[in-house]
Amino acid sequence: MTSNPVLVEVLRGGAVESRHRGALAVVDATGTLHTVLGDIDRPVFPRSAVKLLQALPLVASGAADTLGLNDAELALACASHGGEPEHAQTAAAMLAKAGLDVAALECGTHWPYNEAAQRALAREGAAPSALHNNCSGKHSGFVCLGCAMDKTGDARGFLRGYVQPDHPVMREVTAALQATTGFDLRQTARGTDGCSIPTYAIPLRHLAHAFARVASGQGLSADHARAAKRLRQAIAAAPFMVAGSGRLDTRLMAHFGERLCCKVGAEGVYCAALPELGLGLAIKMDDGNTARAAEVVLAGLLHTLMKAEGDDAALLRSVWDAPLSNWNGIEVGRLRVAARPGG
Amino acid sequence: MTSNPVLVEVLRGGAVESRHRGALAVVDATGTLHTVLGDIDRPVFPRSAVKLLQALPLVASGAADTLGLNDAELALACASHGGEPEHAQTAAAMLAKAGLDVAALECGTHWPYNEAAQRALAREGAAPSALHNNCSGKHSGFVCLGCAMDKTGDARGFLRGYVQPDHPVMREVTAALQATTGFDLRQTARGTDGCSIPTYAIPLRHLAHAFARVASGQGLSADHARAAKRLRQAIAAAPFMVAGSGRLDTRLMAHFGERLCCKVGAEGVYCAALPELGLGLAIKMDDGNTARAAEVVLAGLLHTLMKAEGDDAALLRSVWDAPLSNWNGIEVGRLRVAARPGG
Repeated sequence: MTSNPVLVEVLRGGAVESRHRGALAVVDATGTLHTVLGDIDRPVFPRSAVKLLQALPLVASGAADTLGLNDAELALACASHGGEPEHAQTAAAMLAKAGLDVAALECGTHWPYNEAAQRALAREGAAPSALHNNCSGKHSGFVCLGCAMDKTGDARGFLRGYVQPDHPVMREVTAALQATTGFDLRQTARGTDGCSIPTYAIPLRHLAHAFARVASGQGLSADHARAAKRLRQAIAAAPFMVAGSGRLDTRLMAHFGERLCCKVGAEGVYCAALPELGLGLAIKMDDGNTARAAEVVLAGLLHTLMKAEGDDAALLRSVWDAPLSNWNGIEVGRLRVAARPGG
Repeated sequence: MTSNPVLVEVLRGGAVESRHRGALAVVDATGTLHTVLGDIDRPVFPRSAVKLLQALPLVASGAADTLGLNDAELALACASHGGEPEHAQTAAAMLAKAGLDVAALECGTHWPYNEAAQRALAREGAAPSALHNNCSGKHSGFVCLGCAMDKTGDARGFLRGYVQPDHPVMREVTAALQATTGFDLRQTARGTDGCSIPTYAIPLRHLAHAFARVASGQGLSADHARAAKRLRQAIAAAPFMVAGSGRLDTRLMAHFGERLCCKVGAEGVYCAALPELGLGLAIKMDDGNTARAAEVVLAGLLHTLMKAEGDDAALLRSVWDAPLSNWNGIEVGRLRVAARPGG
């Protein structure tokens, strides 16, 4: 296997303590490569970075309009959220619009990723439910889609097993992933994601292409183009829902609005659409580190692509060249982009 | 920079999703190399993996005996613990033996690493103190050492700033690190650790050599040899104290007793002494991943070095070839050693 370049360095006492390798692709809607670092043709599992693509059928099918889903709910359908109270409440509201409740969710249960929310639940003597799962919005979206698809009159029965690859709901979701990436998902490795739905290995080149299509609408069906635009607008209007307090996706989209639509995925993946520039990008860190590797690479890449200045540059730079402090608040090192294409 | 080999692979759906590169050295007490993978001559920050070396002055000086520190307390002096109630209570007991309290600690405060302990504190409406800091035992050991060194009669005043490199206490600690590793710490990069004490960049070759000396006593001063043996015995007698519930160091040493003395460090470091074999080892993962990289490499390496069979092999294999499950408890992948020297 080729060795991908070091994209992020972690410094302590002026020396490099740790380093993160990875690859990235920036592509336009015709599939033309704009920027490449590392191997972009090896299939990688995009994990949660493609939630927007997986939410396209919810809107394209008309289900979202039929149920009257609002911006916050559509943003949550594309989210990996922190399980904060607003996230859990919004997921519950989506399920209620479908005439169902938390019992319909098949994503599993975990304590909120947001530590304050986790401790607040513990303080109340409460336990988490599937509503606190970081994927509960995506799953609530699947449930809403399934309710619209159901012809049996027994939505609860129809939905059972919706996380399985051959369930009608998941077939719709996979078809959207196939159509937008243009990659043959029948011929690639399939894994099971943390929330139990399938995840397909797709090259960064194709993931970036899908997000260039999302950015521009070019190369998408009319329904998918309309749905992509609606979801981008919803996320821009409700960026808290897509991640949460202090999280990078929320911070970036609260700042950039519709200029940027980005999404983190587990194991060091990032995908983003840049509508202004008609570009899509995809990043995968070899070691799977998200918080201090994929996020740092994303910020450095956006800085270059957007030719960032002023406040935009300050925000991005605070991520790709950041001080590291210890438990006493003493600055002990830095996190910084090692390779910034054209930067 | 040379590219270190991939030592750990993370699989999902039968495909490699992420990979961890790193280097390792196994050395005997004469400094002769036994096993090498990757670059072992580049200095790396050992972080908490050398806490036993840093605790040698506490015992060698006679302070531990004077204050009557027991096995649990000596083990805690070498610990990165989970902040469970027993850990915090034991740190408090050490400080009390020195006639001081939590106010003497300069390690900073953070919520317990152990999630159940964190939620239990929150449930009580309590907040963490410096006693819950994973380094509170090491710092309590420094405080005990300082009390024995103090000639001013004002131990609290003498101790102030004990985390600084030029404080008499920290000079003793650094001298022990210098003596055991045989590496010139004046000529290498110095960083500040999470708990505010200095950390010095040292090649894996020298770290492994230090732990071979700890394993055998060879090449150490008589005081250091005696202190190393005492600390190894204390850790073997109280392995819970060195880490905590479910943690690898505790699990391994509860099983292997005095056959193994191992210690994790932040940023993907592991060091261990193997007294039976007269060997020391040191591992550093390039990307700084500890939980699923350095731990996995350690287990694979121990399996080979110890020629593990039966229960020993089962325990080690459960770490270096482990199923990964998702939030629904479904097995979605594996964590496995990619390169196991001689294995």
